Amino acid sequence: MLSELAESIVNKLSQRKLIIATAESCTGGMLAQYITSVSGSSDVFEYGVVTYANRIKEQELDVSHESLEAYGAVSEQVCKEMAVGVLNKSDANIGASITGIAGPGGGTPEKPVGTVYIAVATKEKTVCRRLALNGDRRKIRELTVKNILNLVKEIIDTM
Amino acid sequence: MLSELAESIVNKLSQRKLIIATAESCTGGMLAQYITSVSGSSDVFEYGVVTYANRIKEQELDVSHESLEAYGAVSEQVCKEMAVGVLNKSDANIGASITGIAGPGGGTPEKPVGTVYIAVATKEKTVCRRLALNGDRRKIRELTVKNILNLVKEIIDTM
Repeated sequence: MLSELAESIVNKLSQRKLIIATAESCTGGMLAQYITSVSGSSDVFEYGVVTYANRIKEQELDVSHESLEAYGAVSEQVCKEMAVGVLNKSDANIGASITGIAGPGGGTPEKPVGTVYIAVATKEKTVCRRLALNGDRRKIRELTVKNILNLVKEIIDTM
Repeated sequence: MLSELAESIVNKLSQRKLIIATAESCTGGMLAQYITSVSGSSDVFEYGVVTYANRIKEQELDVSHESLEAYGAVSEQVCKEMAVGVLNKSDANIGASITGIAGPGGGTPEKPVGTVYIAVATKEKTVCRRLALNGDRRKIRELTVKNILNLVKEIIDTM
């Protein structure tokens, strides 16, 4: 269950005295919502942003205009820049970002519905994964949150 | 149901060609998540922020340090400043903000768990309401989202 997974991540962050910040596009706040559904999450979470528009990604997360033009909003490059951007804007140790196509519209042959990039940035490194998810809008958003929470867990274990 | 309510708000915003931006504290992204759960919501939603820490409320929403000191984060004054702040930072026509105590911790005699302020700002006016909600953390967060979606609906009808 997503709630239990979020709780285990919040506990892990808390034990390690780490803070996470989030930057979301297609999940629209669902990642932040799951993290903050855990009572006591204010110890590990201070800041999250939902950047639906490209202009907002540039303005709020310092995503470069060139990357958006060259690779599109749903790309490894932009996803990494979002994670680094939200990390730099906050006092967090971990920046987690999501950009993708939750559908039902917006898919293309190269990037069909369900194409989602997730990234986790620390001061040392940024790890990004491309996901190919199946399901309706809700399912794709939930699977995305599950995947990024697991990636955050992995990264914490290397810190 | 919250999903249906969110869908009706998104449709109303879309018909009126209005854009909404959100600033959330205790709901932690739940409002943004419900709005963006509606497909086509990218026409009416570009930007949302989750500001858990006071420092982030100042940095991201221009909430004044004096208001936070004088009234506390859970107050009419700070809630209004959050709504105006997110409106000013975006190209939105409506700024919606939430600050409250979802519990189980954090309550005081003056502001018990379930005390939540919601505000909706337009270029013309800012309307704020104090809610006294009952339930666990999840219930309080859901009731908050329901209340602010209804307030947004009211405000749209006056625009």
